[in-house]
Amino acid sequence: MFVILVYDFRERRVAKALKISRKYLNWVQNSVFEGEISKSNYVKLKKELERVMDSEEDSVIFYTFRSTKYSKREILGVEKGNVDNII
Amino acid sequence: MFVILVYDFRERRVAKALKISRKYLNWVQNSVFEGEISKSNYVKLKKELERVMDSEEDSVIFYTFRSTKYSKREILGVEKGNVDNII
Repeated sequence: MFVILVYDFRERRVAKALKISRKYLNWVQNSVFEGEISKSNYVKLKKELERVMDSEEDSVIFYTFRSTKYSKREILGVEKGNVDNII
Repeated sequence: MFVILVYDFRERRVAKALKISRKYLNWVQNSVFEGEISKSNYVKLKKELERVMDSEEDSVIFYTFRSTKYSKREILGVEKGNVDNII
């Protein structure tokens, strides 16, 4: 499956969220990651983020896709991450 | 079509980007917006952002979907935006 992850963590926890997200996905911009991931790794990723997050202050949104056939990705301006898996 | 927009603008231009993105899409988190949009409004949105952005410093990624049938949205933690159009 393909995942786009966007997080909004308080500053004191953001380094942890970055480290975890990078283990599983490609960093593309600011607090945005994407990539192909197995179901089991997706479960692991969510568990690891849940462990470090404060669920009353922090937020993570996952967009998951069975197929990327129906989606497109377009960039304006700087391409910040080095993306291996582009939609 | 359905759009997810994520931007990374320098601070001095971020208020403008926020204002433009909000005109067309729903704010869901930090620098993330989503929503249904017509093709012509999508073109307008891109033009307006291009007008205010510094293309050597700022960045916008658009993920567009013809259908949201193949995608899912999952949140951990706080739901920050008030989302009308959830995938």
